[in-house]
Amino acid sequence: MPGALADLLHELIVATRILANERVLDAFGHVSVRHPHDPQRYFIPRHRAPELAEVSDLVELTLDSEPVRPTEFRLYSEKVIHGEIYKARPDVHAVCHHHAHTVLPFAISGQQVVPVFHLGAVLGHVPFWDQRDEFGDTNMLVVKPAEGASLARALGPHWMVLMRRHGATVAGTNIRELVFRCVFGSDNCKLLAQASALGHVDSLSAGEAKLTAAHQQRPASTTRAWDYWVRHIERAGLMPAKAVEKSSAGPAGRAAAKSTKTRGAKTKSRKRR
Amino acid sequence: MPGALADLLHELIVATRILANERVLDAFGHVSVRHPHDPQRYFIPRHRAPELAEVSDLVELTLDSEPVRPTEFRLYSEKVIHGEIYKARPDVHAVCHHHAHTVLPFAISGQQVVPVFHLGAVLGHVPFWDQRDEFGDTNMLVVKPAEGASLARALGPHWMVLMRRHGATVAGTNIRELVFRCVFGSDNCKLLAQASALGHVDSLSAGEAKLTAAHQQRPASTTRAWDYWVRHIERAGLMPAKAVEKSSAGPAGRAAAKSTKTRGAKTKSRKRR
Amino acid sequence: MPGALADLLHELIVATRILANERVLDAFGHVSVRHPHDPQRYFIPRHRAPELAEVSDLVELTLDSEPVRPTEFRLYSEKVIHGEIYKARPDVHAVCHHHAHTVLPFAISGQQVVPVFHLGAVLGHVPFWDQRDEFGDTNMLVVKPAEGASLARALGPHWMVLMRRHGATVAGTNIRELVFRCVFGSDNCKLLAQASALGHVDSLSAGEAKLTAAHQQRPASTTRAWDYWVRHIERAGLMPAKAVEKSSAGPAGRAAAKSTKTRGAKTKSRKRR
Amino acid sequence: MPGALADLLHELIVATRILANERVLDAFGHVSVRHPHDPQRYFIPRHRAPELAEVSDLVELTLDSEPVRPTEFRLYSEKVIHGEIYKARPDVHAVCHHHAHTVLPFAISGQQVVPVFHLGAVLGHVPFWDQRDEFGDTNMLVVKPAEGASLARALGPHWMVLMRRHGATVAGTNIRELVFRCVFGSDNCKLLAQASALGHVDSLSAGEAKLTAAHQQRPASTTRAWDYWVRHIERAGLMPAKAVEKSSAGPAGRAAAKSTKTRGAKTKSRKRR
Repeated sequence: MPGALADLLHELIVATRILANERVLDAFGHVSVRHPHDPQRYFIPRHRAPELAEVSDLVELTLDSEPVRPTEFRLYSEKVIHGEIYKARPDVHAVCHHHAHTVLPFAISGQQVVPVFHLGAVLGHVPFWDQRDEFGDTNMLVVKPAEGASLARALGPHWMVLMRRHGATVAGTNIRELVFRCVFGSDNCKLLAQASALGHVDSLSAGEAKLTAAHQQRPASTTRAWDYWVRHIERAGLMPAKAVEKSSAGPAGRAAAKSTKTRGAKTKSRKRR
Repeated sequence: MPGALADLLHELIVATRILANERVLDAFGHVSVRHPHDPQRYFIPRHRAPELAEVSDLVELTLDSEPVRPTEFRLYSEKVIHGEIYKARPDVHAVCHHHAHTVLPFAISGQQVVPVFHLGAVLGHVPFWDQRDEFGDTNMLVVKPAEGASLARALGPHWMVLMRRHGATVAGTNIRELVFRCVFGSDNCKLLAQASALGHVDSLSAGEAKLTAAHQQRPASTTRAWDYWVRHIERAGLMPAKAVEKSSAGPAGRAAAKSTKTRGAKTKSRKRR
Repeated sequence: MPGALADLLHELIVATRILANERVLDAFGHVSVRHPHDPQRYFIPRHRAPELAEVSDLVELTLDSEPVRPTEFRLYSEKVIHGEIYKARPDVHAVCHHHAHTVLPFAISGQQVVPVFHLGAVLGHVPFWDQRDEFGDTNMLVVKPAEGASLARALGPHWMVLMRRHGATVAGTNIRELVFRCVFGSDNCKLLAQASALGHVDSLSAGEAKLTAAHQQRPASTTRAWDYWVRHIERAGLMPAKAVEKSSAGPAGRAAAKSTKTRGAKTKSRKRR
Repeated sequence: MPGALADLLHELIVATRILANERVLDAFGHVSVRHPHDPQRYFIPRHRAPELAEVSDLVELTLDSEPVRPTEFRLYSEKVIHGEIYKARPDVHAVCHHHAHTVLPFAISGQQVVPVFHLGAVLGHVPFWDQRDEFGDTNMLVVKPAEGASLARALGPHWMVLMRRHGATVAGTNIRELVFRCVFGSDNCKLLAQASALGHVDSLSAGEAKLTAAHQQRPASTTRAWDYWVRHIERAGLMPAKAVEKSSAGPAGRAAAKSTKTRGAKTKSRKRR
C-alpha cells in the first residue's frame, strides 16, 4: 500500500510534467490528486512552476486546503480550487487548473466550447464562470474558500469549467483520464477555432458525444495516450525520479519513497540519449 | 525474398515514425502495408501509439482484418479501415488513418479540400464521409466491417477521404507515395486555410493537377522527400532498429528478422549524434 | 558589492537569453539595466544578436548613451532608446526593445492592446508611437537622441509602448519584472488576436487590472516564472557562464568577474543532460 | 583564391542549412551562387533536399544550366530558374527558390506582399508570375529555359517574385543578403497575414522602404543576423564540414577542398554540446 501511494504520487508528478511538455501548463497552473485512502485529503506540489515540481515537493492538504502537517513550503494561492471541487464532487479524484493558450481564447471571447472531434468528446458540456459576477473586482485569483466553492458550483456535474479572462479548471476520476481530457480538450479548442475560421462548425450529436466519451475514457485509450506522452517527457529529459529514502522530502515525499533506485537509474539512462 | 519482406516491414515502421515526427499522427492513428506476395493479407502494428511501434509489434491480418496466426496482442479497433480498403482497391498497397490538426478543421467545417500548390496535387479529389449518415449515433470509430466498407465506398477511386468530426484516411500505391501524400496533403490543408483567411483561393486547374500529380509521384520526388524525413527521425532519435533473431517478435516480426544487426548498430550510432 | 554588481550583470545576460529562448527577441532587439549605484549610467551588450551576448560583451554607457570608458566594441545604433527612457523615468531600472511576432501585428494594424487575462495585467495601458509623425521618412531606427526622447515621451508613465511598423519597447522596475512583462505581454497579444478572431474580446476591468498587476509583480510571481524560464535556457544549452578573471572582457565585464568558476562548471554539467 | 572559392562554396551550404533550419526550405527548394570569377557560371547542389546538401554535392553550371564538366549527379529539374535570372540580372550573385509556408498563402491568394515592418523593407516591390499565363497547363515546374526566362522577366529589377500556386524566388547581391531577405521576407509575410486578420495594415512609406532597405542590407545588419543563424544550425547539428582532400567530391567540391580539417573538427566538437 505505501508502494501504491508512492506510485500514485509519482504518477501525479509524471502527469504534471506531461501537461507542461504538452503546453497545457507553463510557469503557472497546478495539478492535484485526492488521497486514495482518505477522501478528505489531497496532494498538490508546493508553489513552483509545475514542470519543476518533484515528488518531494508534494504536500498533503485537507479539503479546506490546510496542510495536514506543518510545512515551511510556500503553497499555491489558488489551492482552494482543488479543495472545494473535491468537497463538492466525491467522484472527482484529480484536478488541473491551467491557462493553456488553446483554451484561453474561449475564456476571453466567451465563445462556447463544444466537442468537434471524437477525442474532444471527453470534454462534455463546458460551463463558464466569471469571478467578477459574484466577487466584483479582485486580483483574479481564486484564493478564498468562497471563491473556490463558487467555481465548484459553476463546474456542477461537468468536467471542465472556463474561467473568464483567466483560464480553465478540469476534473477527472483518475489522473490519466484527467491528462487525457486536458490534452485532447486543448486540441479540441484549437481545432474548433480553426474550423470556425473556415466558416462552419459541425459538432458531435448528443448521442455521439455520450457514446464516444464513454469509449475514450476506458483505460485502453487513456493508457495508449499516456504511454505516448511518457515517451515524450523521457525524450525531453523531464521524466521525474521517484523520491528516495535519503531525500529531504516533506512527509508526503517520504511516505512515497520506496525502493525506487532501480527505476530512477533507468530513467536517468534514458535521459542521456 | 525474406530480406525484401523484412525491408518492407522496416520501411513501414520508418513511415510510421516519419508521420509521427511530421505531426500527421499523434497518440492515435495507424499505418499499414499490403503483403507484397499475398494480396489477401496486410501488416499493421498492434494497438499502441504509432510513434512507439516497432517491427516486432507488427501483425499479419487477412482482408477481413483477422489475425493470420493467433496473437496475444491487442489490435486497433479500427483495423477494418485498412482491410476494407485493400478489398475494394487492388491498386492500393499502403493505408494511413490519421487525425492531423491541419486536416481536421476541414473534417469539422465541411469545407472542400482542393490542391492549392504543386505538392498538394497528389491529393486529387477529396470526398467526405459521415459515419452518422449510414450508421446513426456511434462511438465514432470505424469498428464494424460494414462501417469500413462504407468508408471504402466513399473513398471510391480517390486517394484521400475526409471523415466528418473524426479525421482522414489516405491511400497509396506504395509506402513512400503514401507518406508523401500524407505530409504534403497536410501542408496543402494548412496553406488552404491560410490563403482562405487572406480572402481568396486560387486552386490548380484540372490539367495542372493531373500533370503535377503524375510528376510528383515519381520515385525521384518521393525519395528525395523520404531521405529528408528519414534524416529528421534520425536526428530525433526515432529511427527504428530492425527486429533481430533473438527478439520476442510475433510471427510477422520473426519473418522480418534477417541479419539486420549491422544496420541496427549503424542506426544507433546515428542516434548518438 | 562588486559581487552584487557581477550578479546583476549576469542576471542581465540570463534575461537576454530567456527572452531569446521565449522568442521575444531574435537576431535583433536588446536589453539593458541601469547601474545599481549610479543612476546616470546603464549596462547594455555590444552590437550582436542578444542570444549570443556574454557578460564580457557588456558596456557601461551614460544616459546620453556614450561609453563611460573608451571601447572598440560596435554599439547598438538604437541605444538611445534605453538612455532616453532612463533619463525620463527614474523609476525604470531595466528596458527591452524587441520585435516579437506576437506583438508586431498590433504595431502594424494599430489595433489597441488591452489586458485580456490575469497575467497580461502587468502591461497596463499601451500607447502607440509613430516615428514618422515627428521625424518623417527615416530608416525607421531610433538613432538620434531626439528620437529616443520622443519615444520616451510617448511611453509616458506607462510600461510598454508600441512602435508603428517596427516593434515595442518595454520597461520594468527590475530585470525580472521586465522579463515577466515581456513574456506575458507577448502571450497577451497572441491571445487577444485569437480571441478577436472568435468574434468578441472581454478585457479586464480597470479595477481587476490594477489589483492583478500589483499581485503579479510581486517577487513570488516573477521569481516562480523566472525559475521556470531559467530551467528552459539550461535545457537549451543557453545558460551563460559568468565572466572569469582571465577573460578578455571590457571594463564592465572585468568588474563583473568574481570567482564564478564553480557556478560556471555547474552550468556546464547541466547542459550535458 | 582557391581558398576564397572554397569559403564561398562552404558559405553556400551554410546558407542552405540556415534556410532549412529557419523553415524557408523543406524537402524541396534550392540555393545557388554565381561563380565569383566567371559570371557565366554558377554553383548549385545536386538534386537532393537542401538541408542534406554537402559541399561535395555542388556542381558548376553554365548560365544555360548545363554542367561545365560531365557529372553523374542528378540535377534539379528547376535549375533554369537560377541560370535565367543570372543571365538577366548581372547584379544578382545568389538565388533561392523556395515554398515557405509563410509566403505560399500569398502565392495562393494573390494578395499583394508589402513591407510592414522595418526588416521587411529588404523585400522591395514583389511582383507575381503565373506559369499558366504563358505556358498553359504544365506540371508546374520551371523546367524549360523559356519558362525560366519568363520568370526572370517577371522578377524584372526587383528582388523577390511570387509564383502563383507554387512558391517564390528570391535574389541577392550576395549570399548573406539573400538569406536575410529570405528569412525576414518570410517573417514579413507572416506578420502581414496576422495584421490583416486584425483588420488593418499599415505599410512602410516609399521613403521609409528605401532608406530602411539600404540600411538593413549593410554588412553590419546582415552579419549580425548571419552569426545568429549560424549559432542555431550549430546547436541543431547542421553546421556543414568543408569538403576535405580525400572526399569523393565532384570537380566543384574538389576545387573547394582546402586545409579545412581544423575547422571541420571544431564544428564537430560544437555538435557534441
